[in-house]
Amino acid sequence: MIDIFAELENKARWAKGASHRLAFISTEIKNKALHNISHDLIKRSAEILTANSQDYKEAQASGMNGAMLDRLMLNEARIDSMANDVLAVAGLQDPVGEMMDNRTMPNGLTIGKKRVPLGVIGAVYESRPNVTIDISVLCLKSGNAVILRGGKETIRSNKTLVKVVQEAAYRAGIPEGAVQFIDNSEHALVERMLKLKQYIDLIIPRGGAALIKFVAETANMPVVTGGIGVCHTYVDKSADIQKAVAIVYNAKVQRPTVCNALDSVIVHKDIAAEYLPLMGEELNKGGVEMHCDERAISLLNKNKKLKLKPAVDEDWGKEFLELIAAVKVVDSLDDALAHIDKYGSGHSEAIITENYTSGMRFLNEVDAACVYLNASTRFTDGGQFGLGAEVGISTQKFHARGPLGLRELTTYKWIIMGNGQTRP
Amino acid sequence: MIDIFAELENKARWAKGASHRLAFISTEIKNKALHNISHDLIKRSAEILTANSQDYKEAQASGMNGAMLDRLMLNEARIDSMANDVLAVAGLQDPVGEMMDNRTMPNGLTIGKKRVPLGVIGAVYESRPNVTIDISVLCLKSGNAVILRGGKETIRSNKTLVKVVQEAAYRAGIPEGAVQFIDNSEHALVERMLKLKQYIDLIIPRGGAALIKFVAETANMPVVTGGIGVCHTYVDKSADIQKAVAIVYNAKVQRPTVCNALDSVIVHKDIAAEYLPLMGEELNKGGVEMHCDERAISLLNKNKKLKLKPAVDEDWGKEFLELIAAVKVVDSLDDALAHIDKYGSGHSEAIITENYTSGMRFLNEVDAACVYLNASTRFTDGGQFGLGAEVGISTQKFHARGPLGLRELTTYKWIIMGNGQTRP
Repeated sequence: MIDIFAELENKARWAKGASHRLAFISTEIKNKALHNISHDLIKRSAEILTANSQDYKEAQASGMNGAMLDRLMLNEARIDSMANDVLAVAGLQDPVGEMMDNRTMPNGLTIGKKRVPLGVIGAVYESRPNVTIDISVLCLKSGNAVILRGGKETIRSNKTLVKVVQEAAYRAGIPEGAVQFIDNSEHALVERMLKLKQYIDLIIPRGGAALIKFVAETANMPVVTGGIGVCHTYVDKSADIQKAVAIVYNAKVQRPTVCNALDSVIVHKDIAAEYLPLMGEELNKGGVEMHCDERAISLLNKNKKLKLKPAVDEDWGKEFLELIAAVKVVDSLDDALAHIDKYGSGHSEAIITENYTSGMRFLNEVDAACVYLNASTRFTDGGQFGLGAEVGISTQKFHARGPLGLRELTTYKWIIMGNGQTRP
Repeated sequence: MIDIFAELENKARWAKGASHRLAFISTEIKNKALHNISHDLIKRSAEILTANSQDYKEAQASGMNGAMLDRLMLNEARIDSMANDVLAVAGLQDPVGEMMDNRTMPNGLTIGKKRVPLGVIGAVYESRPNVTIDISVLCLKSGNAVILRGGKETIRSNKTLVKVVQEAAYRAGIPEGAVQFIDNSEHALVERMLKLKQYIDLIIPRGGAALIKFVAETANMPVVTGGIGVCHTYVDKSADIQKAVAIVYNAKVQRPTVCNALDSVIVHKDIAAEYLPLMGEELNKGGVEMHCDERAISLLNKNKKLKLKPAVDEDWGKEFLELIAAVKVVDSLDDALAHIDKYGSGHSEAIITENYTSGMRFLNEVDAACVYLNASTRFTDGGQFGLGAEVGISTQKFHARGPLGLRELTTYKWIIMGNGQTRP
């Protein structure tokens, strides 16, 4: 234990040292590093897929469920997509050095904020190996060193991916030590990592609710929590029914295993009789099981093909991460807002309506990171929002909310320039 | 205990409820509230001063030191200044509702961030009663409810000030319950308050190092830490000596009891023989005692009027909060940077130099909330930076750094408007 703790602390210290130099590395070198990484991901894809297939077989043999296996799995297409995301980040503006809120005070002092990296980012995550690339690349571009701790079920994939990143980045001139990987899956190491406040400026946990809770309660440095998405779509009485059917289908079926997928549909009673049978028919094509309240079930159960169950209390506020949707009929927009206020996780919430005032009220009154009018919650994503890849989705209000991109990995300092000013 | 805990939780719940309505109150009503507060502070100053003089007498009798008594004391001039600060905040732009980073994506989605209040701010502070006004007013203007917990040594002053704020604000249409005050000085109440994550979105501690440490370690919600200022001024070999003398004098003497006052002067060896005697003469006029390293003492001890002591290890990195300055001679800018890196608290650091490259290096390389070139660190203050009054000065990197004004008391949510978009 003592040896692996010492090794962890060495890695953290090394990252901190590298972060001081990385803060001054030019955008040119950082972009060169990202181009190298993108290139090497493709070039070394066989090596990556070999490691991944070992992880996959082991996970499969251990009885991992389908949703988890899907998250873990890489293929050529997913590697291509990762490599493209890296290039997209290279193309984004470097936030470091940006000057903001510049002003000259009456006494002649010039005051402004300058954007600077946070320092060292720690990432604790599960399953999805693309997180290794996303987080490394966003940290490097934003001038931060990074310490990665992935799940043990993808340790071979992550180890290979990190090797690709390190070699490609250091070749471009990124200070050695800026990318660290904890390649020992001993659980006590995470706990120790979360106490290294003197070396790690921010922790980003990505994974299930248990992981995030553990990290938030254990870490002695700031943590960006999020990633748990209990997402509602409210179909208002003035909804365009075709749009509502298409959006709900997309939000539930397009990729059910991720946090921005739909969990509950709330339908206004005045439109329920017309809307629900069409929605049921469509969701059924996607293989969705519906957990319905009484009113919803009475409008759906004429169609014997549908997979229906009476909703139980635990269905409200549940993140399903599979092809299940809770369905509820409400009397009013106010009831929908109250339901979301009670059961939402502050991630992504949507209203489908053609009524201007209902739409504006929903956008204003729902307290969540992302609030949608007439669109699928599946868009909550750094790439889809134009931020490039994301390090996570924050559901807290502090520092940053929603997809965390480059700018969200920086802080600023005030720069004050004078010619001898003293305070009267 | 059970009763006062229940009362605390009621106040917190009441504040949370009020915060939901306060988020939608117009700027007009918020400004009206601030004008009322400013007006009532002057009108009711006799009442405020009576309460404050009771606090003062009791504190004096208890043997409180001069620096603390100065922080506690109110007079007509300080009340006038508080009332003016409130008007300055009323004149500031309301950050709530600001739309940022708006964009239309290729698929036609319009995406942007809308600035919204954090919700409920908890303030835990010591001594200075003006904090009660500053924090209340900044919270109200930024649409946040506030729960105030001041020190027991100013409980009468704070109680009276809060009454003034509540009556003035509610008269203008601010939802009742938006300003809460914990009028029981039982210590266990603070501990309980710091666990009310479900009601309080952010805690701002203002006070000494022990208070801040206690709050940061106890709270289960985000905390903005700061306020501890170990501030260095480095007099470079290319400094303008007259400016350096004036700036160091101002930074140390103008108000020694506050966090942005100078603690250590670092002087380049090439200018020390000329600069230090002049600085010593000047600081002596202000009654400053100097704790000097060997080289500094040998250049200062010819002047027998000066109050000199050999520096001990504890003098470096100490926040004096009184008329004492540590003085050190260094061989180079690099040594000065290393000293600040080791002993600074990330608050405010200054360089005095006419050399362009030295100035730029200092501004870039010092990792602190506020970095100065040729000006007094006493300017680190929301008012002086043009933010209006401040709720505190953050020395952390997360969320906000330096003086915390209105905008730093808000968060944002993403608003996404579409016409039926689904994710391919």
